[in-house]
Amino acid sequence: MLTKAFGAYAADKPVEPMDIERRAPGPHDVAIAIAYCGICHSDLHQVRSEWAGTLYPCVPGHEIVGHVTAVGDHVTQFKVGDTVGVGCLVDSCQHCASCDEGLEQYCENGFVGTYNGPTTDTPGHTLGGYSQHIVVNDKFVLKVSHAEDQLAAVAPLLCAGITTWSPLRHWKVGPGQKVGIVGIGGLGHMGVKLAHALGAHVVAFTTSESKRQDALDLGADEVVVSRNAEEMQAHAGSFHFILNTVAASHDLDAFTMLLKRDGTMCLAGVPEHAHPSPNVGVLIFGRKAIAGSLIGGIGETQEMLDFCAEKGIVADIEMVSAQQIEQAYERMQKSDVKYRFVIDSATMSA
Amino acid sequence: MLTKAFGAYAADKPVEPMDIERRAPGPHDVAIAIAYCGICHSDLHQVRSEWAGTLYPCVPGHEIVGHVTAVGDHVTQFKVGDTVGVGCLVDSCQHCASCDEGLEQYCENGFVGTYNGPTTDTPGHTLGGYSQHIVVNDKFVLKVSHAEDQLAAVAPLLCAGITTWSPLRHWKVGPGQKVGIVGIGGLGHMGVKLAHALGAHVVAFTTSESKRQDALDLGADEVVVSRNAEEMQAHAGSFHFILNTVAASHDLDAFTMLLKRDGTMCLAGVPEHAHPSPNVGVLIFGRKAIAGSLIGGIGETQEMLDFCAEKGIVADIEMVSAQQIEQAYERMQKSDVKYRFVIDSATMSA
Repeated sequence: MLTKAFGAYAADKPVEPMDIERRAPGPHDVAIAIAYCGICHSDLHQVRSEWAGTLYPCVPGHEIVGHVTAVGDHVTQFKVGDTVGVGCLVDSCQHCASCDEGLEQYCENGFVGTYNGPTTDTPGHTLGGYSQHIVVNDKFVLKVSHAEDQLAAVAPLLCAGITTWSPLRHWKVGPGQKVGIVGIGGLGHMGVKLAHALGAHVVAFTTSESKRQDALDLGADEVVVSRNAEEMQAHAGSFHFILNTVAASHDLDAFTMLLKRDGTMCLAGVPEHAHPSPNVGVLIFGRKAIAGSLIGGIGETQEMLDFCAEKGIVADIEMVSAQQIEQAYERMQKSDVKYRFVIDSATMSA
Repeated sequence: MLTKAFGAYAADKPVEPMDIERRAPGPHDVAIAIAYCGICHSDLHQVRSEWAGTLYPCVPGHEIVGHVTAVGDHVTQFKVGDTVGVGCLVDSCQHCASCDEGLEQYCENGFVGTYNGPTTDTPGHTLGGYSQHIVVNDKFVLKVSHAEDQLAAVAPLLCAGITTWSPLRHWKVGPGQKVGIVGIGGLGHMGVKLAHALGAHVVAFTTSESKRQDALDLGADEVVVSRNAEEMQAHAGSFHFILNTVAASHDLDAFTMLLKRDGTMCLAGVPEHAHPSPNVGVLIFGRKAIAGSLIGGIGETQEMLDFCAEKGIVADIEMVSAQQIEQAYERMQKSDVKYRFVIDSATMSA
């Protein structure tokens, strides 16, 4: 089956309309008509081949929400018309220790990404959510129980949401804890919302004075402008956990200094250029840790979606047409978005 | 009371004999005749003022074993003749969250080091275990239940032992776990012994082929020469925990690559020059952590001493006279010691 998509034919070519093929649903497959797809920084890195190994044509997109149009014979959890989501993963080995624990993102045999991953489907690599239809193994399809008019804003939960939810849950963030969220962008704005909803005292860190009120509106209890040394010092040694969503190279010590004894700062972004080497003494003199975390597993993604539906949490978004993707990339690179662009898939037919 | 000691009058002066004053035991004090004192790398850093803030005269030494000669009126846990130990701490605030949890090494008001710490005693800073007598608050005195002929080899447990024990226990090392110990020196050789005694599968990492048999003799199940990329690669993604005792600047990624998902590498040494900045991607793609740990609390030091007495564990040592301290420093800097020098305090009277 052919479907309309937007993708690039080469690293130096813009994202443009193309027709791509989707497989006929197998017995365990769910066919989905995509309603909305979020635009993630990873999409831009991949489509421009800023990360090694981009295969072309490249159709990005892994923050997908839509409706089921067909299910395979063995699919029992989904039926035609259901509202569903697809995130960063569409397959994994299903038999390693990580998959057994529901942590498919750490699959020891390598998960299959929603785009640029290995597949026997045409053209030999997966093609993502900048398209009108997708066919996905039912184990990697999520139920969405938000209202229909929230669906565009649900899309970013599938990557930005789960990437912040997973570490917040793994490090057991909750009431009585002081939690920092560094960087108020696509990931960070979800981190603030989720940490707040989990009951923590949330401090948002931003380099930009202009984001102070925004961060409070998102649910932060306090906002610290991280360029202000005095403001930073006032929080020394006080955080149970810090989720650092900033991928740009920066001084990690400024934040490890703010951790309490036994606190962890979890990094969610891989910097293009290495961070300055962290001060080991700060870690040793407080038994602190710097850790990393990658997206989230399918089980915890469902947990997050259910939690968000119950609490009425969605992303803050700006809707764009498929024809505006390149413009959205430009603005995203200037952090000129609050806080996620989402493509209205209907515009691909325009 | 005057006692014989060995210390330095300045950063550029050698360690030499001196007479120092010890306070009369107060109601909570224990007076100790020192039998043995281990020589730790920290001693050398401090006495040469390689760390900021050395106060002179400087009498190093924080791996102390001896016998009680007097106790204050309120001391109930010790009596004259008891065999006791003193480690890196001789006081702390006793009322912060860390002290309340028995983690005096992380005292939020600053612990008092066994040497170079603040005190009202003459000369205004603490003087350590390179001496024949010391007077210590009973809360910071440890019971030693090893046999008399083991006491010299018990001394290094008070720093090298607890500095490795504390992280091994904190990260719950035990049977069924694969644990790495990086660096087979004063700390590392205790790490191998303790991790082995705790029931873990222990892999010792050394840069030196010549230490292979030694590490096996210490209790390692396997030894990896870390300069051998192929040997390292064979252990990729397999460690639950790595205790890295190497303070010299080195490539941390070589070891974080060896951790399993959710594994931690704990650093026990502050490098003079920063390590190359660690690869954040390795942490993110396995939810791994780099952490630090400092010495250990008084409660866990007692636990470690009791465990070692029960299991017959002591350090591997070479005994020296007080007159050989400078020579011991020289050899220690060349790693020419298996694995700790211990001063026989009786030689101070020579």
